[in-house]
Amino acid sequence: MKPASPYSGLLTDLYELTMAAGYLEAGFEGQATFELFARSLPKRRNFLVAAGLQQCLEYLEHIQFSAEEIGYLRGHRAFAGIGDAFFEYLACFRFSGDVWAVPEGTICFPDEPLLRITAPIIEAQIIETYLLSNISFQTLIASKAARATIAAQGRSVMEFGTRRAHGPESGVLAARAAFIGGCRGTSNVAAGYRFGIPTFGTQAHSWIMAHEDEEDAFRRFLDIFPNDSVLLLDTYEVHAAMEKIIAMRRKPRGVRLDSGDLAGDSQRIRRRLDEVGWNDVQIFASGDLDEDRIESLVAAGAKIDAFGVGSALSTSLDAPALGVIYKLVEVESGGTVRNSAKFSAAKITYPGRKQVFRRLDSRGCFVEDIIALEDERIAGALPLLEPVVRAGARLAPADSLADAQARCMDQVAGLPAELRRLAPAPAYPVQHSDRLEDLLDEVRRRVEKTARA
Amino acid sequence: MKPASPYSGLLTDLYELTMAAGYLEAGFEGQATFELFARSLPKRRNFLVAAGLQQCLEYLEHIQFSAEEIGYLRGHRAFAGIGDAFFEYLACFRFSGDVWAVPEGTICFPDEPLLRITAPIIEAQIIETYLLSNISFQTLIASKAARATIAAQGRSVMEFGTRRAHGPESGVLAARAAFIGGCRGTSNVAAGYRFGIPTFGTQAHSWIMAHEDEEDAFRRFLDIFPNDSVLLLDTYEVHAAMEKIIAMRRKPRGVRLDSGDLAGDSQRIRRRLDEVGWNDVQIFASGDLDEDRIESLVAAGAKIDAFGVGSALSTSLDAPALGVIYKLVEVESGGTVRNSAKFSAAKITYPGRKQVFRRLDSRGCFVEDIIALEDERIAGALPLLEPVVRAGARLAPADSLADAQARCMDQVAGLPAELRRLAPAPAYPVQHSDRLEDLLDEVRRRVEKTARA
Repeated sequence: MKPASPYSGLLTDLYELTMAAGYLEAGFEGQATFELFARSLPKRRNFLVAAGLQQCLEYLEHIQFSAEEIGYLRGHRAFAGIGDAFFEYLACFRFSGDVWAVPEGTICFPDEPLLRITAPIIEAQIIETYLLSNISFQTLIASKAARATIAAQGRSVMEFGTRRAHGPESGVLAARAAFIGGCRGTSNVAAGYRFGIPTFGTQAHSWIMAHEDEEDAFRRFLDIFPNDSVLLLDTYEVHAAMEKIIAMRRKPRGVRLDSGDLAGDSQRIRRRLDEVGWNDVQIFASGDLDEDRIESLVAAGAKIDAFGVGSALSTSLDAPALGVIYKLVEVESGGTVRNSAKFSAAKITYPGRKQVFRRLDSRGCFVEDIIALEDERIAGALPLLEPVVRAGARLAPADSLADAQARCMDQVAGLPAELRRLAPAPAYPVQHSDRLEDLLDEVRRRVEKTARA
Repeated sequence: MKPASPYSGLLTDLYELTMAAGYLEAGFEGQATFELFARSLPKRRNFLVAAGLQQCLEYLEHIQFSAEEIGYLRGHRAFAGIGDAFFEYLACFRFSGDVWAVPEGTICFPDEPLLRITAPIIEAQIIETYLLSNISFQTLIASKAARATIAAQGRSVMEFGTRRAHGPESGVLAARAAFIGGCRGTSNVAAGYRFGIPTFGTQAHSWIMAHEDEEDAFRRFLDIFPNDSVLLLDTYEVHAAMEKIIAMRRKPRGVRLDSGDLAGDSQRIRRRLDEVGWNDVQIFASGDLDEDRIESLVAAGAKIDAFGVGSALSTSLDAPALGVIYKLVEVESGGTVRNSAKFSAAKITYPGRKQVFRRLDSRGCFVEDIIALEDERIAGALPLLEPVVRAGARLAPADSLADAQARCMDQVAGLPAELRRLAPAPAYPVQHSDRLEDLLDEVRRRVEKTARA
């Protein structure tokens, strides 16, 4: 078994490395600028919540190719005929470029760059795959979490989906992104340890089933965790289980419903808890929840204090992939800087280094976004992209996750009301500046000339 | 930033650890048996391909809690009042149990255990979350890959989806599982390095765009990779690009189409290639492909030699979560062994340690599966679960991935024809043995008595 470094330069597509070898052999030393953005919104999303930047920056700080990894590439058919210079280059590889990014927790829309990389093209190319998979995944999950949080209308939402995540490490990243999107915490302990996210748990059916008797199972748990027991009611019969706990006169911190009629059962359980004076015992619900079920449960008057959301959240079940792309927008070659765009098959990308400006009204509500060239200034609008890495060095310590979550919640509150609904809404207005449209025309004319040539 | 060990015992849900503390405090030392299986098939799947076992076994061999991780748990609110014994137990934690499993690449169906763990209940519980996320994810991807491979009818399918995977590590595991399901290779270099999977690449639009002129971009690539160039045709205009390459009289290994009318363009490109005698130049296609598009392209007579499948494969886009569960089926307590089952809300799980038997006809075609108790023998049927770990030690080195792929392809060939189609088919016959049904009745009577008590 080969060791798996989380910062391995091999965490990329093969063509990034062959092109890198090509750029090096061809003496392509100019700077290139790539921008990372979503091409469109998934069908049931009205906005995105940017997330995943922190892992990208850690990767850029630590990326390296070990001697053994370079040995593997030397033996690879694709590099037959590539000289030593490339492998020596990889042995000393470090990222030396600049990065601009929107802070995590920022609400964003299609076409708006979340990340802008300016670096020697060989570096910018090698890191592409890692940046895309990290940003697209965490942005998907944070966006889904924001919807669940909106639907819960102030009740807690917990991320409980590690077991259905796309592998264990994906579960840790999902917990992180879900927290940015508004979740109060996660069941994932590694996410608690690594990122300081609050972690929560209840008890599993297996705890009850491992005991001969349900009542014994409850009593023993209350003995061991007198102040932090959330007892699971639905292993056999919910209301019988509730009566057993009440009869013990041992107040748990909470109870959990994991199946059945969550709205009706939660109301009946709440009534019984209140009758015996246990007004502060919380009711947790779980079991195939998502933002739609949360919205219906809230509308039906369910007495649920906290929702545990599993697969739907950790996999962004209804939209498990985000069309995020990484496009060359400017390249220096032979001493001249050239803007770059792509026009094939109705997939237009705009050239030039860009900034996103957001116009808010006096109450902080979103009015419109304008995508402009980096050096434009749009009066009364705030730029979203900030410099985060210069010449390979981080400019500031990472935002705390709590700050990212607060940013997200604050921006969600400023969204037009129809975008905050779960149903699809008309697109939020995102304009391109006149200078950007002019530049696009100019590049289009040049490219058409080239393509015909 | 805290170091992230891939074998950390914290890669689990908090309740696994609180229950573990509970089992320890309660002196619960008996063995428990848990089985891991899919509750049902996703809507558009007729079978599953088991995958992910290898990573589970590596985890069980190496799982540990570092001193720093234990310090984190000691300070966690959930463990207030838990004595030193638990933390000392974690410091020495190792998995000491037995594991039975179906080999990777085995075709399987709902209710059939993919993994059976017998261990002290505390150990079996701590590892639950890791096993579920790994097996469910890799099984999803291998199953999706098998469909794409079937649709391609002998043409190559490559996994090209890392950039849309659920994080970089998820991309590596997706590449692995896709290979088991029949893909010829992947673009993911780390998967090539770590697992020995063949890796493939072409060139990106950015290579073309970085050059002033498309023809220069092609020529330079051919100069650097004379024997292994797959040139991308659709940056500007596919057929103009093809003519430029032909005019250069430099034969590439292949060409790639990434957008537009893949069926028509591939036919026109094939014709031109053949006209100039380049019959061995391969045509690669990519761009939002999945098994349905592959099937349509093949039916439309597309001249495509290899399909690069991205997001649809690396996220199992149409079915991104698999309802895999891990259920207690037997537990020892107070010196007696008790079978365990769950009956709530129409979610029945069968008790007892099980084996899956598969009946094949004389040509190796699937007839039916029978889920039975471990000690049953079903004449003329083959058991699928094999012992892989005994008392914490691996019994044999891992299967090679090539063996797992061959097993999958061999079993796919033996499936009833309607299950091999992409459209939903009637369920494959999976029976429970009479002894298992009797045991279920017996446990049901006992549980009903308990629940009423």
